[in-house]
This record gives sequence, structure tokens and C-alpha cells, in this order.
Amino acid sequence: MTTKYTIVCVRHGESEYNKENRFSGWFDSDLSETGLAEARNAGKILKEKNFTFDIAFTSVLKRAIKTLFLVQDELDLHWIPVVRHWRLNERHYGGLQDLNKSETAAKHGEAQVKIWRRSYDTPPPPLEGNDPRSVTNEPKYAKYDKTVVPSFECLKDTVARILPYWHDVIVPVIKFGQKVLIIAHGNSLRALIKHLENVSDEEITEINVPNCIPLVYELDENLKPVKHYYLADEAQVKAAMEKVANQGKAK
Amino acid sequence: MTTKYTIVCVRHGESEYNKENRFSGWFDSDLSETGLAEARNAGKILKEKNFTFDIAFTSVLKRAIKTLFLVQDELDLHWIPVVRHWRLNERHYGGLQDLNKSETAAKHGEAQVKIWRRSYDTPPPPLEGNDPRSVTNEPKYAKYDKTVVPSFECLKDTVARILPYWHDVIVPVIKFGQKVLIIAHGNSLRALIKHLENVSDEEITEINVPNCIPLVYELDENLKPVKHYYLADEAQVKAAMEKVANQGKAK
Repeated sequence: MTTKYTIVCVRHGESEYNKENRFSGWFDSDLSETGLAEARNAGKILKEKNFTFDIAFTSVLKRAIKTLFLVQDELDLHWIPVVRHWRLNERHYGGLQDLNKSETAAKHGEAQVKIWRRSYDTPPPPLEGNDPRSVTNEPKYAKYDKTVVPSFECLKDTVARILPYWHDVIVPVIKFGQKVLIIAHGNSLRALIKHLENVSDEEITEINVPNCIPLVYELDENLKPVKHYYLADEAQVKAAMEKVANQGKAK
Repeated sequence: MTTKYTIVCVRHGESEYNKENRFSGWFDSDLSETGLAEARNAGKILKEKNFTFDIAFTSVLKRAIKTLFLVQDELDLHWIPVVRHWRLNERHYGGLQDLNKSETAAKHGEAQVKIWRRSYDTPPPPLEGNDPRSVTNEPKYAKYDKTVVPSFECLKDTVARILPYWHDVIVPVIKFGQKVLIIAHGNSLRALIKHLENVSDEEITEINVPNCIPLVYELDENLKPVKHYYLADEAQVKAAMEKVANQGKAK
């Protein structure tokens, strides 16, 4: 297999909710000060490695959009087209949204929280439309059919809703020869990785995506991965992944 | 005439080149500290007046794109589609690009500088393709036909290149009922104003657009202006316009 296309995926910088160890999901948490710095740093790393892009895809959540903007600022690529879509949003955490992960672990047990966080097909409790945490009536989602926009998701659901966007929108752009940057979320990127690497439902539970360390995928002509690597040394990546994995522990 | 559509135009915040009183044109000058604050303030004004938008159009120059991003941040509208296009760029100042306006006035006379800055159909000296200030080979312009992308423009040329984008892209979006925000440049907005208001070639020389004071146009069903107004008091607008007009004076 030889590399024909190279894409770069980045998980947004630390959000206020990440900092407070809360389930974010579709809550539109802003970047924390750390997150702003992480985003700029991701841009600096990409610049140092001479990456450039023709187009960027992101979600409709500001933590991803702002991360992208700061990456563009570092790369002096403000001018490239940016496409935002809810299908690249974080997994919808349903009734867990806003809750503190450690408190939830203390209440329901670490095992249950790990299942909610990482099980492939166990959904979180639903979030009813009249719950004040529901976002489906916000202008950014209101124009979509309510049976299409989710109100809670397991990772399997996230895979199912991200793939149409990947196949119909992003893949043709890649095959057209455009250098693509995707800035999204822990679970929407895990969903994409599962598809790209054909990761099993079991193995995907152990894969964590660290914040703001650019992940490079080299793809062959059929968009099968030739190789992938993070733009950081192994110890940095390991530490960042463990940080993500440990969020679900009771303190 | 009754108002059917409302659009808002904003000139970017102060750039480094504005601060140094240099002709910017297509030089990609960044926002100054003042410009960053002006951009946020424009967003705050729009928020205070309860404006919201469905889509934003801007140029491929970072002073406009960053202004827009900060306005979006204040309005919490990161998620709306943003379309960037060179046809909304500042007038191309050709061979005047980068030069200090006062020094140029001292050398060529204030009258000549006013002609170059404000005459409708007198172009500036051309900028040759091999001039280091030329940008036509940059990736953001390289894909366009070199006979289409300008290397120097009088305002008449700017009107001619902005109108296809206005008629073909922005007008259909307005007529579709989308609330449109346009963040652009002093002369690309003067070009648009000239068209909208049917301003004469003579009168347009006296019209200046201040940085970052939102300009609201209420349009009838045929997109003829019913009225227009700045979101600031008269004294603020007058002072800001005079500041722009005075940039061409020898010190």
C-alpha cells in the first residue's frame, strides 16, 4: 500500500467542561485558557512540520471551531474554506450531559461510567426534549428533522451519523486532491478511527484521542490507512491518552 | 417602500497597516490591538441591538476574517456558515501597496493622493507580477485566471468585480430569507454602497466607511434601500469617517 492522500485530525483543546470533568456532549462549552494555548500549540506543531491545508471541516460546537481558528491563525490559513456540520459534533451524551464524571462514578460506579463512556452500543440515559439541557430547538439544529438529530447516542450511533458525512462530503474532497484538516471531538474522531481502521467493537473501548495533538492519517487510493501517527513523542501521547481515560474515575 | 430584508455591513477593525497609515490593498495585514478591541465592540453592539445572522460573507484577508470571528464570538454564532471570497477583498492598491499615505502625499501632493484614494476611475500605478509585493502566486489566488484577479484597481474596477459576487451569490441568499452579515473593507463596502444607493461617480469620492461601526441596510423586495444607519451616534460616526478621510494628508 502506498500513500496517496494525507489527512490530519485534531481533537479540540481543553474545554471548560473538560477542566471541570463534566460530560460535555452537545453542550457548547467554550475553550478554557489551557485549551486556547493547546489549540495554538497544535497550529505551531503543524507549521513546524510544514503541513498546509486546502479546506477544513469541523463541528458546530465552539470548542472545535475556535480550536480550528487558532490553528488557522498559526498556519496563516485564515482564508481556506471551513465547513461546519453537526454530524462532526461530539457524541450526544443524553441525560449524562453537564454531569461531573467523578461524581457520576461515585454514584453509579466506575464500571458503569466506563460502560457509558466507552461501550460501543450501550446508550446513555436519554435527554427529553423538554429538559432544559436539550439543544434541539436552538437555531443551529432547529432546521433539521428531529428524528435525525440525536438526543442521546452510544458510539455506534455516532458512527452511524458521522459516516454519511464522511462518505458524501469529506471523501470526495479528499479524492479531488484537497488537503483536508478535520477538527472535531474525542468521540466523533473515535467513530472515524473505528471506520478507517476497521477497529472491533471491543477494541474501540480502549482507544482515547488526546486533546490537540495532531493525528496524521496516510491513506491509500481506496482510503485505507497506510499508517497513522501523532505529531508528538510517544510519552506525550501516552500521558495525554491516560489523562482522558482517567476522567471517568471516582476521586 | 417597505423593508423586506435587513443586511449588516461591517468594515474590519484597525489593521497594523491602518495604524502605520500605509496603503494595504491586498497586503494581508493583521488586526492591531485596537482592531481586535474594535471587532469585539462591533459584536457587542450587534448583540445589544439583538441582531442575529444566518450566514456571513467575508474576504480572504485576515483583517476581515478575524473581525468576523470576534463578532461571531460575541454573538455566540460560531456555528453559522462563513463564506470567504477574494471578490470581497479590499480594492487592490497596485503600486501604492505598502507605501505610507502621508509620505506618498508629501512626495506626490495631497491632491494626487486623494485622486488615487478616492477618484472613481483613476487607477493607481500597476503592480507587476514580479514585484515582491505581488500576491497573485499565493495559494489563495493561484487557482484563478490571472486575467480575472486584479493587480491594481480604481474603485470602478472594484465595483465591477464585486457585483458578480453580489448578484450571483449574496442576493439569492438574501432573497431566500437568510439574515446576512458582510464583513469586508473600506473600498469593497464603498463599491457595494455605490451600487445599492446608486451613488454618482462624484459623490462616492466623499463617502468614507468607518472601521467596525455596523452599517445596517434595510432593503425592499427589489433590494433597493429603504433606509440605512450606523449603529452608533452621529458624532461617533462623523469622527470615525473624518479619521479615514484624513489619512491621505501630508503630516
